[in-house]
Amino acid sequence: MKRRIMITVAYDGTDYHGWQYQEGVPTIEGALSARLSELTGEECVLTGASRTDAGVHALGNVAVFDTESRIPAEKFPGALNVRLPGEIRVTAGCEVDADFHPRHCHSRKTYEYRIWNSPTEDPLRSRYALWYYGKLDTECMRAAAVPLVGEHDFTSFCSVHAQSETRVRTICSLEVLTIPPRDEEGREIVIRVTGNGFLYNMVRIIAGTLMDAGRGQTAPERVGEILTGRDRTLAGPTAPAKGLTLKKIEFPEGLCRDIKEEREQD
Amino acid sequence: MKRRIMITVAYDGTDYHGWQYQEGVPTIEGALSARLSELTGEECVLTGASRTDAGVHALGNVAVFDTESRIPAEKFPGALNVRLPGEIRVTAGCEVDADFHPRHCHSRKTYEYRIWNSPTEDPLRSRYALWYYGKLDTECMRAAAVPLVGEHDFTSFCSVHAQSETRVRTICSLEVLTIPPRDEEGREIVIRVTGNGFLYNMVRIIAGTLMDAGRGQTAPERVGEILTGRDRTLAGPTAPAKGLTLKKIEFPEGLCRDIKEEREQD
Repeated sequence: MKRRIMITVAYDGTDYHGWQYQEGVPTIEGALSARLSELTGEECVLTGASRTDAGVHALGNVAVFDTESRIPAEKFPGALNVRLPGEIRVTAGCEVDADFHPRHCHSRKTYEYRIWNSPTEDPLRSRYALWYYGKLDTECMRAAAVPLVGEHDFTSFCSVHAQSETRVRTICSLEVLTIPPRDEEGREIVIRVTGNGFLYNMVRIIAGTLMDAGRGQTAPERVGEILTGRDRTLAGPTAPAKGLTLKKIEFPEGLCRDIKEEREQD
Repeated sequence: MKRRIMITVAYDGTDYHGWQYQEGVPTIEGALSARLSELTGEECVLTGASRTDAGVHALGNVAVFDTESRIPAEKFPGALNVRLPGEIRVTAGCEVDADFHPRHCHSRKTYEYRIWNSPTEDPLRSRYALWYYGKLDTECMRAAAVPLVGEHDFTSFCSVHAQSETRVRTICSLEVLTIPPRDEEGREIVIRVTGNGFLYNMVRIIAGTLMDAGRGQTAPERVGEILTGRDRTLAGPTAPAKGLTLKKIEFPEGLCRDIKEEREQD
């Protein structure tokens, strides 16, 4: 009997050419589907909730695949992790309805963009944070974030190569947090954004624009105009991939089928 | 005129065979001395304060070298960093007395051993922390740390291959800190130790022994006996290198020569 399995995936994207399978280069999807095929003896096709770019990290990306194998859903993480390289870990598995598609359903995604704001570069942070040594006014960054919250046309904040039909998205929250490290000169600035979906490069362009505001190059008041201008050239630069982590994707409750309960009812 | 320059070095040790130069394999000393020689046109020999093992990281290791070049001491970090791979960064440079040796002088070193204590492995932490999913009682770990503070013969807590003349060292402080992460199940446990010098593998054996105490395998009261037993087999295992970071080395004040002041006095 064919079942649809949903897995949660964490990865360090530094050495991968993004999520999506490409012939001849290491990708997260490629690594996962090869190990799944080894494990199940089937040709497994993965469908990811978020096709993250090269160099982007994830703590909670999600993907589904169909299988005829009898491996219990909750056994997939352990069985895959012994086969996967250390940069990729499957952290959960459950069975979902056969028609569930992780991109064509309501969900909320949370991303974090991390900046190491210090006079000194830190090689222990450099895989996961953008180093910026100049002054960043976080109050200005917070003020610049305000107009972006809510439902808007985000044409100014997405790559000109974005292929979505509509550029309207809803940002539920957009915070600028600072984390002072112990014993070190500097601070981590974390831009944390939650929304119902993000256009191509949207979080990285928001990060680049908030950094411009922090540097005093863009007045926070201008962000509303940038949004209504619907023109990519009005917003700030696309911040580098390495600072970006997909933290989690929240789906409607009750998605994971409780197999035990079903078995008991049989 | 020959000058002795002291540099502070941070590195991600994951892909290096430790600090010390070895023919044909990547080492921190090897990478630094090759770039220094390129820069100065001289054969530069580095003397490190701490010859960290393969896989161990540093935020503040220290090394000295002699040079006839006229490059100002404070220009070495920038000039080296543009040549170095991203995993190694020189964070400071100053001129010191010609007879200063970073191992044969009074100093205090601080190391941190990091444990990611969570049911879920995290690929974004796995280069810098040991993953341990079981229960660790941090109160027991703290109680087990108490007998180790002070001046002791640490024979039980060093590798049988240690070559030091004396096994007596002083630990000034040994803390067990916990850092709850945002939004994630689990916690970081940081074992932070400061002392006047450490024997071969000493911090990693202390970490392994405190973890044994946290697991309930070693009663905290037994740690005093382990110390007085002067036998390596009594203590816990050597914890893996990847969790260890040399945070800083403190030297007596006034070590860096204030060149400007000297010039003015001339």
